[in-house]
Amino acid sequence: MNLELVTVGTELLLGFTVDTNSAEIARRAGAIGVRVVRRTSVGDTDAEIGGAVLEALGRTGAVLSTGGLGPTSDDVTKTAVAAALGLPLRFADHVWDDLLERYQGLGRTPSPSNRTQAMVPEGAVVLRNRWGTAPGLWIDSPRGLVIMLPGVPREMRMLLEHEVLPRLAERAGGRVVRSRTVRTTAIPESTLADRLGDVEQAVAPATLAYLPGLEGVDLRLTVQGLESDESDRVLERACAEVARRAGEFVYALDESSLAERLVDALRTREQRLAVAESCTGGLIGGRITDVPGSSVVFDGGVIAYANAVKLRELGVPQEVLDAHGAVSEPVACAMAEAARTRFGTDYGIGVTGIAGPGGGTPEKPVGLVWFAVAGPDGTSAHRSIFPGSREEIRARAAQTGLYLLYRRLGAAPTAAVEYPV
Amino acid sequence: MNLELVTVGTELLLGFTVDTNSAEIARRAGAIGVRVVRRTSVGDTDAEIGGAVLEALGRTGAVLSTGGLGPTSDDVTKTAVAAALGLPLRFADHVWDDLLERYQGLGRTPSPSNRTQAMVPEGAVVLRNRWGTAPGLWIDSPRGLVIMLPGVPREMRMLLEHEVLPRLAERAGGRVVRSRTVRTTAIPESTLADRLGDVEQAVAPATLAYLPGLEGVDLRLTVQGLESDESDRVLERACAEVARRAGEFVYALDESSLAERLVDALRTREQRLAVAESCTGGLIGGRITDVPGSSVVFDGGVIAYANAVKLRELGVPQEVLDAHGAVSEPVACAMAEAARTRFGTDYGIGVTGIAGPGGGTPEKPVGLVWFAVAGPDGTSAHRSIFPGSREEIRARAAQTGLYLLYRRLGAAPTAAVEYPV
Repeated sequence: MNLELVTVGTELLLGFTVDTNSAEIARRAGAIGVRVVRRTSVGDTDAEIGGAVLEALGRTGAVLSTGGLGPTSDDVTKTAVAAALGLPLRFADHVWDDLLERYQGLGRTPSPSNRTQAMVPEGAVVLRNRWGTAPGLWIDSPRGLVIMLPGVPREMRMLLEHEVLPRLAERAGGRVVRSRTVRTTAIPESTLADRLGDVEQAVAPATLAYLPGLEGVDLRLTVQGLESDESDRVLERACAEVARRAGEFVYALDESSLAERLVDALRTREQRLAVAESCTGGLIGGRITDVPGSSVVFDGGVIAYANAVKLRELGVPQEVLDAHGAVSEPVACAMAEAARTRFGTDYGIGVTGIAGPGGGTPEKPVGLVWFAVAGPDGTSAHRSIFPGSREEIRARAAQTGLYLLYRRLGAAPTAAVEYPV
Repeated sequence: MNLELVTVGTELLLGFTVDTNSAEIARRAGAIGVRVVRRTSVGDTDAEIGGAVLEALGRTGAVLSTGGLGPTSDDVTKTAVAAALGLPLRFADHVWDDLLERYQGLGRTPSPSNRTQAMVPEGAVVLRNRWGTAPGLWIDSPRGLVIMLPGVPREMRMLLEHEVLPRLAERAGGRVVRSRTVRTTAIPESTLADRLGDVEQAVAPATLAYLPGLEGVDLRLTVQGLESDESDRVLERACAEVARRAGEFVYALDESSLAERLVDALRTREQRLAVAESCTGGLIGGRITDVPGSSVVFDGGVIAYANAVKLRELGVPQEVLDAHGAVSEPVACAMAEAARTRFGTDYGIGVTGIAGPGGGTPEKPVGLVWFAVAGPDGTSAHRSIFPGSREEIRARAAQTGLYLLYRRLGAAPTAAVEYPV
């Protein structure tokens, strides 16, 4: 079953409010086999709302709108849709009684403008709103199905969950949209695409989307329209094939973060970590300690932003700083080793780089970052040049620092036990 | 001038990605008098993209698309639009040369799949992308104006700013939507609302929106439909009135972050800072070093996640840890003082708390955080109990740590010299 969304509200078009309802509806609908095929946002006018709803019915035959059901003068969704479908509005006593009761519970009385909220298009099923004043509406018209929900996220969510999804599931009948993610890092999107080759054919009927971000490229595999068991089998196979091709750049077969994977890997090995951060200034420590329970594997570290701190706190020799500069392989190695030795941990990560926007030279451009991982089996260094802004360079550097240790541990990515679909 | 947005990507329809680009484009376009009148999201197929673009041109005559310009097989926006408009695609040497140069700068070579990115619809103006590999396109066709931008938020934003808005502004001209933000922190939304009282009347015709988030509550003031000069005057007055009522909880009269304001304040005073972080694990250092030029005021710090580190690296006495526990006023004070003394800075911030989900007790619940600021004029401590998840508690703790020093410095919030509208 396909569905279109129409989100109503001039504030959405002005851009001061981000439409999060749509994404939530799409995910929840997808999980019961209803596919959202288009989303349209329009302003608060009869013509725009009515037009968008009729166009959607013409294309897809089913539309869900959010917003414009409140008591104020800019709430016109109900009247616009009723007019577009040629349905008269009638005052519904049971809706009004509900409203009165709700207001009494809050120790208030409804205002005259609330009376419009008890007007119902002929033939509509009223979806009772126990979380606010604007009821939802479900209209099975000759032109198709129209569902109207309020735009307040919590009310929308509650009505969706309790009133809309059960009815939609009945119509859709069993076929689902399922999705899984293979997370990669430290490889550019185009290089990854070359590596994956004709993987789209290999994973069909699952479809593949590349989602590049500051943590790397996520590969999202989606299956639509199959039965539940078959979906799981197809996704399992597709995931394995994509992960095989992407190889060592894969760190997770689910939504977990690299820091979570790393904390898990260290915990399994009963090993501990400390960090020495210059250009990342605490971001690596911040990511690791985002993970609940990270204290089992993480002692802490030194934020060595000033060179004096690298010298004094980490014992990086002045001669090394003078000869190679602060952003160099020997300094990264000295930092990683000092973190390990000083905190008495199994591993140390050292990071030093030029995050910009100033400070770059032709030999050492903005984006240059030296990493080192010191461990029981010695110290290895890695050099990257990251594109982007200061924020992007730092985020990528933090991710790469975590990745280098993760890869050093030789941990194979595993899916979390409970994979949330 | 009116404009429609078409955001492309099956991901958006599945709901796993929230479309933040649309809101940003709408805001920026509104600020130069271009009104977004409809937004449509469609999947990655030729038919859906071509259909949506032609419909938008038929209704409004101008459309801006985002997404689907990358090198992978699911990127079909360019070919779909070219086909819909009946324009052949040609290989453009100058686009390819740009791509080669960009890759060389990163020490890489483009892959064969990147070649499709150099294909350009006949008659299109190429909007050079210095922030990624997918150039934007501007097509003045007989059917209307089509602008195509990549979907990666940063690339979209940069192309919008540098290539699209100047061209659109030339076409549009006229009445504007302007907005300014008064940023507050360390005060709950409802307390802030009580403090502001009947401010809505006082600031009219500007409108006020409360935007609560992890960094505090932003107060957004907006003016629509006035001439440019009058807009500025109304906003200036409204901003001043809101800031006056919100008082010491205001840290910025523009979009700048608290870390930026703090770095500015320290720079003006020629003073320096070091940190000692336990529950925030590096987040405070991370926020400060997000600010370009922060090295002038920030030396670094110690991430003292394990108690052993608090003892050994920060000299917190074992007796104090034993008597009061790691999350306590004396430990926070000892941490702040140790950071200051050890790094030889003017100020030290110490933070220790229980971020959860585990580790809480009736006396010391999850969310309890002790802060201390040590400075030339002594050490002061502060206790907070934050609601929310581990992530929220940590984010709020980092923000509060910065705020306590900012307030200690007695810095008055100032707007940045160049306010971006």
